Amino acid sequence: MPITNEEIATRLDAASASYSSTFDKDHLALPPAKKYLVLTCMDARIDPARAFGIELGDAHVIRNAGASSKDALRSIVISQQLLATEAIVIVKHTGCGMLTFQNEDAYEVVEKNLGAEARKELEEKKLDFLPFPELKQAVQDDVKFLRGTKLVKDEIPVSGWVYEVETGKTVRVV
Amino acid sequence: MPITNEEIATRLDAASASYSSTFDKDHLALPPAKKYLVLTCMDARIDPARAFGIELGDAHVIRNAGASSKDALRSIVISQQLLATEAIVIVKHTGCGMLTFQNEDAYEVVEKNLGAEARKELEEKKLDFLPFPELKQAVQDDVKFLRGTKLVKDEIPVSGWVYEVETGKTVRVV
Repeated sequence: MPITNEEIATRLDAASASYSSTFDKDHLALPPAKKYLVLTCMDARIDPARAFGIELGDAHVIRNAGASSKDALRSIVISQQLLATEAIVIVKHTGCGMLTFQNEDAYEVVEKNLGAEARKELEEKKLDFLPFPELKQAVQDDVKFLRGTKLVKDEIPVSGWVYEVETGKTVRVV
Repeated sequence: MPITNEEIATRLDAASASYSSTFDKDHLALPPAKKYLVLTCMDARIDPARAFGIELGDAHVIRNAGASSKDALRSIVISQQLLATEAIVIVKHTGCGMLTFQNEDAYEVVEKNLGAEARKELEEKKLDFLPFPELKQAVQDDVKFLRGTKLVKDEIPVSGWVYEVETGKTVRVV
């Protein structure tokens, strides 16, 4: 059952009232205390704080479709160069939507749902949806991409992991 | 004190063991059950699930530097067109790093820290860090951006909020 906009607002207001009533983390600084960043997928089944053991204030958390490091490059550079993070953790996951389609499929769905003008906008923006056919290979490719760009220092450790939506476990790949 | 790569791995392994030991959410489907998506900042001081009341499996969570909808467009289109979300919630926050610099500052820091080659890579990629000078205006601009693109259906409700890192409260702006 999709939630209505009103229900979203009600839920958010209630969460805000409850969360702020016991909130005692007003002393946290802007730069992450533990100086690392976690890049993971936007998937609804992932709770990075609980699943990956991230305490509030400790790490940047970047999330996009597929935990793509290419798509996250802007945020990664800001995190490292302006807010002094010194390690990168990539966590992709089993059952990821990015394993299920190719760019042309997405272009066709957009055209069908949103019309020819929307497809034209995709083409003008040269939007690459960055799907991948194999999970562990995609983790390795992302680590390689970050090792290949001059925008990430060679000394920055980058590790790659897979979260299992079936078990709640996170397993290291690279 | 920055965390070492080994400490990150130890922490993640421990979180994985603990989280998976009581994990009972293996039945959740790939598309978000409540069919909405939340876009917020990568800031270490934000715990979207707790602060915004998002139950596991209910919503996509996209995070980048500044909760930029322009930067998140690829993920938003995937969320809506391939995984059927029907509402967008943008949450920016007080004390955001994006309020503290301009593109040219970031380009200079990159050149100073990473060298002329890195700056050249930024220029070749035409990387826009998308900083903003005023918080509420930035929320409004992001809503406007999503209303302006043909890649988001006119009927999709988009609301804009500000999370207060000082109080733990989330307040609606638009």
